[in-house]
Amino acid sequence: MSSRPHNFNAGPAVLPFEVMEEVRDALLDTNGSGLSVMEWSHRSGDYDAVRKEVESSFFRLLGLGADHGFKLLLLQGGASLQFAMVPMNLATVDRPGSYVVTGSWSKKALGEANRLGCGHEAWTGAGTNFAKLPAHGDWEERDGASYVHITTNNTISGTQWRGLPQTQAPLVCDMSSDILSGPIDMDRIGIAYAGAQKNLGPAGVTVVLIREDLVGAAPDGTPAILDYQTHVKADALYNTPNTYGVYLMGRVLAWIERLGGLEGIRRRNEDKADALYGEIDGSDFYRGTADPESRSMMNVCFRLPTEDLEKQFIGEAKDASMIGLKGHRSVGGCRASIYNALPPESVQALVSFMQEFERANG
Amino acid sequence: MSSRPHNFNAGPAVLPFEVMEEVRDALLDTNGSGLSVMEWSHRSGDYDAVRKEVESSFFRLLGLGADHGFKLLLLQGGASLQFAMVPMNLATVDRPGSYVVTGSWSKKALGEANRLGCGHEAWTGAGTNFAKLPAHGDWEERDGASYVHITTNNTISGTQWRGLPQTQAPLVCDMSSDILSGPIDMDRIGIAYAGAQKNLGPAGVTVVLIREDLVGAAPDGTPAILDYQTHVKADALYNTPNTYGVYLMGRVLAWIERLGGLEGIRRRNEDKADALYGEIDGSDFYRGTADPESRSMMNVCFRLPTEDLEKQFIGEAKDASMIGLKGHRSVGGCRASIYNALPPESVQALVSFMQEFERANG
Repeated sequence: MSSRPHNFNAGPAVLPFEVMEEVRDALLDTNGSGLSVMEWSHRSGDYDAVRKEVESSFFRLLGLGADHGFKLLLLQGGASLQFAMVPMNLATVDRPGSYVVTGSWSKKALGEANRLGCGHEAWTGAGTNFAKLPAHGDWEERDGASYVHITTNNTISGTQWRGLPQTQAPLVCDMSSDILSGPIDMDRIGIAYAGAQKNLGPAGVTVVLIREDLVGAAPDGTPAILDYQTHVKADALYNTPNTYGVYLMGRVLAWIERLGGLEGIRRRNEDKADALYGEIDGSDFYRGTADPESRSMMNVCFRLPTEDLEKQFIGEAKDASMIGLKGHRSVGGCRASIYNALPPESVQALVSFMQEFERANG
Repeated sequence: MSSRPHNFNAGPAVLPFEVMEEVRDALLDTNGSGLSVMEWSHRSGDYDAVRKEVESSFFRLLGLGADHGFKLLLLQGGASLQFAMVPMNLATVDRPGSYVVTGSWSKKALGEANRLGCGHEAWTGAGTNFAKLPAHGDWEERDGASYVHITTNNTISGTQWRGLPQTQAPLVCDMSSDILSGPIDMDRIGIAYAGAQKNLGPAGVTVVLIREDLVGAAPDGTPAILDYQTHVKADALYNTPNTYGVYLMGRVLAWIERLGGLEGIRRRNEDKADALYGEIDGSDFYRGTADPESRSMMNVCFRLPTEDLEKQFIGEAKDASMIGLKGHRSVGGCRASIYNALPPESVQALVSFMQEFERANG
């Protein structure tokens, strides 16, 4: 394991090493079946047990008891497909979806609603390069909106909502990059969706948590596969799921439970973020790009004095076995993605490296 | 490996054991990266090499040289999402898609086109329980159809087209259950799509081969994620793909090449199918349900004299370590799915078991 790089990729991202060892050992013979989970029928009892365990683990982690009124769907297509499915299912021209645009991903989500003629921009942070999230009162929900859409964590600009806003219309959250990184106020949520590849498992599974009263609103003519009701009615087995991805997600959820659930993982994530932001704030060499009030605990974006130094920093970090530190191509700079599975030791290693680099080049 | 069951599942299905060993060994450290392929960025050079190898392997297997005019997309959502994407991209009310309905899956495909108001039923085998495919001249392509859609292999009724029909409009083929099981006449194809989970790899990857002139026809208002053009323009990286599934598919494609490519795999598949149909035809105890002219080399469907005997057969087969032999719940009976990766020894074991069972109960 000494040769395992510190992986700061923005997603697909690092997975918990003990989970990876577990699934490696089970790859040829999962749960005593003599077969790989990939070779099981999705309608077998074996797979059903895996799927049910993912479901109960998810609801247990979220602190949802009986009669919580949510359905969990394990779909494909990533958040990008949800950008289309949400308005197809919920919005109309008269009752558009109201979007708080806090970065590239919310913009894409709004774009799909606009394509259907039913998007409304409630707020945009484009003017400040998305470095800041709106404060309470900065944005107004459109009257009669069918839902309000936010991106809870913005991977590119490194911002994250502190708590979910109270809305009149149901709140729809793209949580791809911070789902299960800490407790979630489910009382405020209508739909939460997330691609798995940052905090939950490998790419190729999309989690959709949907409040039951929002199911069944799609207009006639909606393709069956894109209607939430189809999947709810089929008990999430309308078509073949990404069975291996779902299985692996189950192992990751069990790992989160072993770490103390969402409170435990939040403490771990806070400690990592504090260490990194502490280093940035304590230095005149590094400069955080996100407004301190809006900072993300998942993606820490920072700049160095010059672009040349940034290039050198990323290169030397790579030589020191730290990868994925380049900022998104649309904004430049540096970014350390420190999702759930990133070990605290990787942050410690990065902080030490940053100190040395500053000493040598500051 | 002696405890590995013979896996006749209809999909997700058996995978080549040597491929499974290879990916097990590479799970924690793929291609010397020190990380699992699942932890790579989908925009990394490492992943790009994997994806390009899948693409070149696919085209090499299909015998397509330079300037072949096809694009290969590696999407998510299964054939079920293609049922919707095909008419959304290609059909209009005036120029519907014309569907040859040879089983449940073609019916579902037509259903999605109908939901959009642009489906046409060119033929249906419902009257004969889908036991037979249409002969030349039995069905007529609708004048001005935007495409003709067929399901090349029907998993539930166990039928398979022998060669692709010549059509006026572009031919769209759902090849989920027989893709790369033998050579494909690409000259006849406009679009071929397939879920991976039968012949190509694990569930969660969808292959779409599309002729370039069919890209870009989607009307305004089509969600970006559902427009083929979006994926072609983004070089199949519009959003995060199922990177692990794509990687594993690459290993399966390499395995097919080692077996002698599509001619080699066809011989292997023919030998397996001949052995099984030979046993059925040579017995008065077993009865094949598909018309002999329409029989599938992938899914061999058969009945025993009584339903009680079928139940006993499936139970005793399971005790003898042969799983997945129950027919689809909509038709009953028995079905042995014998896709590319099913070893010939599994068919030999099944034939021996069938002979013993007949001796004991015939």
